[in-house]
Amino acid sequence: MTSPSGIITLLTDFGLQDPFVGVMHGVVLTRFAAARVVDLTHAIAPQDVAEGSFWLARSFGYFPAGTVHVAVVDPGVGTARAAVAVRAGEHYFIGPDNGLLLAAARSAARGGGEIEVCRLDARSLGLPAPSRTFHGRDLFSPVAAMLASGATSFAQLGPRSQPLMAGTWPSARRHDDGVEGRVATIDRFGNLLTNIDSALVRSLGEDLVVKIADRTLRLVSTYGEAERGEVVALLSSFDLLEIAVRDGSAAALLGAGKGEPVTVRSAH
Amino acid sequence: MTSPSGIITLLTDFGLQDPFVGVMHGVVLTRFAAARVVDLTHAIAPQDVAEGSFWLARSFGYFPAGTVHVAVVDPGVGTARAAVAVRAGEHYFIGPDNGLLLAAARSAARGGGEIEVCRLDARSLGLPAPSRTFHGRDLFSPVAAMLASGATSFAQLGPRSQPLMAGTWPSARRHDDGVEGRVATIDRFGNLLTNIDSALVRSLGEDLVVKIADRTLRLVSTYGEAERGEVVALLSSFDLLEIAVRDGSAAALLGAGKGEPVTVRSAH
Amino acid sequence: MTSPSGIITLLTDFGLQDPFVGVMHGVVLTRFAAARVVDLTHAIAPQDVAEGSFWLARSFGYFPAGTVHVAVVDPGVGTARAAVAVRAGEHYFIGPDNGLLLAAARSAARGGGEIEVCRLDARSLGLPAPSRTFHGRDLFSPVAAMLASGATSFAQLGPRSQPLMAGTWPSARRHDDGVEGRVATIDRFGNLLTNIDSALVRSLGEDLVVKIADRTLRLVSTYGEAERGEVVALLSSFDLLEIAVRDGSAAALLGAGKGEPVTVRSAH
Repeated sequence: MTSPSGIITLLTDFGLQDPFVGVMHGVVLTRFAAARVVDLTHAIAPQDVAEGSFWLARSFGYFPAGTVHVAVVDPGVGTARAAVAVRAGEHYFIGPDNGLLLAAARSAARGGGEIEVCRLDARSLGLPAPSRTFHGRDLFSPVAAMLASGATSFAQLGPRSQPLMAGTWPSARRHDDGVEGRVATIDRFGNLLTNIDSALVRSLGEDLVVKIADRTLRLVSTYGEAERGEVVALLSSFDLLEIAVRDGSAAALLGAGKGEPVTVRSAH
Repeated sequence: MTSPSGIITLLTDFGLQDPFVGVMHGVVLTRFAAARVVDLTHAIAPQDVAEGSFWLARSFGYFPAGTVHVAVVDPGVGTARAAVAVRAGEHYFIGPDNGLLLAAARSAARGGGEIEVCRLDARSLGLPAPSRTFHGRDLFSPVAAMLASGATSFAQLGPRSQPLMAGTWPSARRHDDGVEGRVATIDRFGNLLTNIDSALVRSLGEDLVVKIADRTLRLVSTYGEAERGEVVALLSSFDLLEIAVRDGSAAALLGAGKGEPVTVRSAH
Repeated sequence: MTSPSGIITLLTDFGLQDPFVGVMHGVVLTRFAAARVVDLTHAIAPQDVAEGSFWLARSFGYFPAGTVHVAVVDPGVGTARAAVAVRAGEHYFIGPDNGLLLAAARSAARGGGEIEVCRLDARSLGLPAPSRTFHGRDLFSPVAAMLASGATSFAQLGPRSQPLMAGTWPSARRHDDGVEGRVATIDRFGNLLTNIDSALVRSLGEDLVVKIADRTLRLVSTYGEAERGEVVALLSSFDLLEIAVRDGSAAALLGAGKGEPVTVRSAH
């Protein structure tokens, strides 16, 4: 069983304009003075659970075993949606059970072991009743501090719960004639990052093409192979299929956004 | 007397475009290697002392006793305005004496104890003469490090000074027929956050209405009570009156900005 | 020889929209759990090596001796450009050898001592083969952790290399009739920050004028000397010549951007 590393990551859609994130740091430090709190990102598009799920699953693995990852993209805050803590492989995840955590938990458990889920309840944990709109501060941050400090074990956090909810979108899937997925997010440079794993693409063999928005793109090995202004597909540094244009924005050129279907097939 | 927690928070209007904030972290760490520096927010609107005062007062309490809060929204930097350190209740505040610190200090002292103010002078503290425009780096950060590390006690920071300056706006006030306040800031979602405490609203009893920008709004308990597109007032997670519209921007819909007067009255 | 302080700074053009920076923190903490990682800035304009070089050189000195500064503005990532670690005076710098590091290294070595450069190779350092596009995560962050933790000494990082590459622009220069430089960056307030050191300006004596974009500006001591709306030059808190207008944007008023030539001369 992995013991907590003392590190807590935060991923939210709160932005950095208001001090919401700073306050979460304060709540953690109040309960666990030695915590190391790292901001993963707070620029998830407001209420975009799919984008939050994507980045959490692609990012958590760069942190040490025993890290507690708090993720809050929570359109249902204040409703009956469950709040959960998850243990999967060597990582912990805390947040709303709305599809945000499943992809990361599956990835963490890939090395072996099951996904364990506890349902969180403020009162049972000895916490004051949370506000209706800011569970990131009132529930998830204190629970992260309790778990990361070792004050409370995972099993003590709450009763064992149902499997995690699936997200809005299916994962990318292999069909007879290729792989089908979607654009998960658009990075700062206008590159389209898909939910299609590099391994899935490689399993299709050589000489592939990518279809998106009525266009057929070459799958190249490096940006350098693309001609100026050519939109191409390639396998990115996050081990997924990415659609890019050298020195430009693929999103703008294709007029394609989040959720756009993408397929990979043999060129023949 | 509360001993320093080793935590220093920073709240400024410097933004994150330039490395001004990073440099303040460096100055602190140079003098106090074990400091925990937390960015509360750096997106206060340039020179908006009222907005900085609002968020400092609403945020500091989420940090442990003994935290040193540095706040720099300082249109008068380089003029005769005083630089001060403040002890109030279990918290310390450092910044310009221009109305930025008073609301937080009053809130911190509410539990008991007076507000003590020291006037800061770089030369007396053994610091190099500060630049004319960046006291956040040259005066406030070093003083925060000296205080948070325990190297210098509060009393040693400088001579006891006058009471803190009041801010631009009066606090919200109770009148015979209700409460009168203002919009203090607008959050990322377009919600209008007022300077009217929830407790003040509750003291008016039940069945209330809120007036702003020639409109009369219902005071509801949760977003869920609002109809789609209806602008409503509610008590927010920061214990104040907030004006919001579900899935939209109240600021845009009302055409109301910071400073806009808001009143709460009986519906009858 | 300065021993590492355990502090690592990060300066990049990655922005904070995506979790690229958060992931770099994770990579550092995975290898060096006690690291103190400080974000200097991540808002360098994409691929603007000159701007990155400017801010690194102006900022590193506010950190303690033994700090490891990671800088990544890297249009040539994935090409043959070298990756290097540098020891200069009491500071360490890690990044691509494309002109980004030289100004900082020269400034750090000013107190004495040479600039030592090691060429980094992932394989020799026992690291997995880096991705083609994200050396900040795959090479520079792990090397920073190895160096800052003391696990690897500077000399062990790689073979001694050639002198660092110079940047795109020459430094500011003194001519017979004055000093010639350029606008290096524009801060959040629209002030133009030049690459002309205050010391160089002072060496010209008194009664100076500054020319930029076909305008001749007064060199004043403080903002207070400027008339409302007057564009003036002054020596800034970062010890360089700055062009500003009180309560306005000099960049907008002059229509001048990065790279714009600036000269300082006697008024007579």
